[in-house]
Amino acid sequence: MQFNTHFNDIAQSYLFSTVAQKVAAYQAANPGKQVLRLGIGDVTLPLAPAVIAALHSAVDDMSRRETFRGYGPEQGYDFLREAVRGYYAERGVELLPDEIFISDGAKSDLGNILDIFSDANTVLVTDPVYPVYVDTNVMAGRKVIYADANEGNGFLPMPDYSVDADIVYLCSPNNPTGAAYTVAQVQEWVDYANAKGAVILYDAAYECFVTDDSLARTIFQAKGAKTCAIEFCSLSKTAGFTGTRCGYTVVPKALQRGGMSANAMWLRRQTTKFNGVPYIIQRGAAAVFTPEGRSQIQANLAVYQGNAKLIADCMDSLGIWYTGGKNSPYIWLRCPGGMDSWQFFDHLLQNIQVVGTPGVGFGANGEGYFRLTAFGSPEVTREAVARLKALFAK
Amino acid sequence: MQFNTHFNDIAQSYLFSTVAQKVAAYQAANPGKQVLRLGIGDVTLPLAPAVIAALHSAVDDMSRRETFRGYGPEQGYDFLREAVRGYYAERGVELLPDEIFISDGAKSDLGNILDIFSDANTVLVTDPVYPVYVDTNVMAGRKVIYADANEGNGFLPMPDYSVDADIVYLCSPNNPTGAAYTVAQVQEWVDYANAKGAVILYDAAYECFVTDDSLARTIFQAKGAKTCAIEFCSLSKTAGFTGTRCGYTVVPKALQRGGMSANAMWLRRQTTKFNGVPYIIQRGAAAVFTPEGRSQIQANLAVYQGNAKLIADCMDSLGIWYTGGKNSPYIWLRCPGGMDSWQFFDHLLQNIQVVGTPGVGFGANGEGYFRLTAFGSPEVTREAVARLKALFAK
Repeated sequence: MQFNTHFNDIAQSYLFSTVAQKVAAYQAANPGKQVLRLGIGDVTLPLAPAVIAALHSAVDDMSRRETFRGYGPEQGYDFLREAVRGYYAERGVELLPDEIFISDGAKSDLGNILDIFSDANTVLVTDPVYPVYVDTNVMAGRKVIYADANEGNGFLPMPDYSVDADIVYLCSPNNPTGAAYTVAQVQEWVDYANAKGAVILYDAAYECFVTDDSLARTIFQAKGAKTCAIEFCSLSKTAGFTGTRCGYTVVPKALQRGGMSANAMWLRRQTTKFNGVPYIIQRGAAAVFTPEGRSQIQANLAVYQGNAKLIADCMDSLGIWYTGGKNSPYIWLRCPGGMDSWQFFDHLLQNIQVVGTPGVGFGANGEGYFRLTAFGSPEVTREAVARLKALFAK
Repeated sequence: MQFNTHFNDIAQSYLFSTVAQKVAAYQAANPGKQVLRLGIGDVTLPLAPAVIAALHSAVDDMSRRETFRGYGPEQGYDFLREAVRGYYAERGVELLPDEIFISDGAKSDLGNILDIFSDANTVLVTDPVYPVYVDTNVMAGRKVIYADANEGNGFLPMPDYSVDADIVYLCSPNNPTGAAYTVAQVQEWVDYANAKGAVILYDAAYECFVTDDSLARTIFQAKGAKTCAIEFCSLSKTAGFTGTRCGYTVVPKALQRGGMSANAMWLRRQTTKFNGVPYIIQRGAAAVFTPEGRSQIQANLAVYQGNAKLIADCMDSLGIWYTGGKNSPYIWLRCPGGMDSWQFFDHLLQNIQVVGTPGVGFGANGEGYFRLTAFGSPEVTREAVARLKALFAK
């Protein structure tokens, strides 16, 4: 037996472990200091009451023979697929029911979708980047090339027709930069993909933070996207499902090449290697899309959006350049005073005990940048902002 | 962009759709007849009360900020991994906590584990076979070879040292044949794998049906298995989790080749492409391993075991050759009167309205055989057995 030696090519990341080690060392040396964590990429508010009620009801279904559910459809129950279809219809995007696949989260499907593509494809990602896009392709031995995201393009690189890419990853609003493409910009990427015969894997996990109507909430707002794009979304950030695990993937039937259909291939992949999301969880997810659920999750999102605004306003008042913060839970800022990412990390930790994430951990273009997140509590966020202002107003 | 053209090599199976069509056509033509389904491979009894209580409690945890859970460890919470470790310890198998990975089911992990193996490996499966083992490898372009299971070997093929295989699939108790290896037989396969440098992917999804102490409940009962085997198990049949989705995979740290570790690679694969099983579901799964849960699931298993015995006793009384039925929910029988699998299917449907699964649907060696299952209700099973006796006693 031979192992897959491409695993030896995956870069080891020490980003979050180094952050944790530095924070632990600081706290051990300074037990009296209160450390404020604005590096967290996880939600902190509990599930909405409508979701909790639906989960309880579904658990009860599983306790009685008449309502018990065994194997469900691998691609998800119709009650949830129809709810997702209605959500897209609100944005003017008409999908067929069997273009929607319920998943246990965007990360799983973003990795697993690669089963349907040849290992010979060239993959284009941005730098900085969510590392999962790179690692999943390196594992399979695919060539990965980079599009520079930087201050010049507002961390929103646009297509370069001199570059031939087969698989393009876009994440908007972006993790880690918080930058979000307009519908017009997404249209340029769709046009590029259709011209090149490429496919776009579009990660819309943060779409719920978009409030500006000019920004894309789905790639399918662009014309022609159904012949070149697959979209991944999640309830993780939308409804606090990071530990509850449910998302959805849209694979249009029009995405075909050489007589093969992405939709048919993904269905075959999922029916062969997946047995669907738990019935209980799908019932909870469906409650997110009810009027009651929608209203409750908006209240939670408003808390995170309020935190993001506090941080963004702080950057504005200090004259620090940043992206995100307005249509995203992430604030990606240029480290003041010419500090590099890790110098700034240490500077904040030592002086004001605020913890964020060094931008260089997401790629070479992240050097000199820093990520703060809006997932803390309003109290912690307010205190962190006060400390930032005091430190940099000096 | 190029699709993965290996998908064109996957055989299309019409087994269950053809069964469904034939039954629907019969019912439409004979609306007054009661059709009895003994082809079902899904559980029908509701979740145990201890599991239901744990699920409700975990839902409540998600409703309060203090007990809310966001992202969990991809490999599963310690409370569940420790429960699984204790279950193995009862069989004298000592595992390290981080050799156990919590999964959303055996099918997912049986497919996804292939990420860590080179596509150049040759795969050995039995014929007849659970089709997922074949399809997942054909998708990746691996060569698949077959070991004959037949009446001569009791549908339990043993290793042939003249055959060089890199990845060997064993399923015991077997789906579809119900045949189960003894510990001594599993030892022979482990010795073969260690001699050849092969890996065994051992599907133990039906281990809970084993009551005969000479039969293997885990491959790790064989000496040396930790250097050559990965085991997949599931609560689907053990605790009726087919719609609740939880299983576990054991990847020993001793399974190494050329400086690469299966355990480290699988951890990397899962942290990159998976975000763990829902917290709520893991709490429900942990309840399966409590004394109360164990006692309750045994009561459910006893119902299915009783059904299996009814069918097996019927075969005995009719003098029909079969495997399974005693340590398995499946009864795999030789079609009487020299009928082939589909002739027998039609014969039962037309004459006594009993539905099973034609053995030829699981491979060429299944021709002339037929699968009945114990997952129906006792009432349906008793009536089906009475009709079988009446038909063949003529």
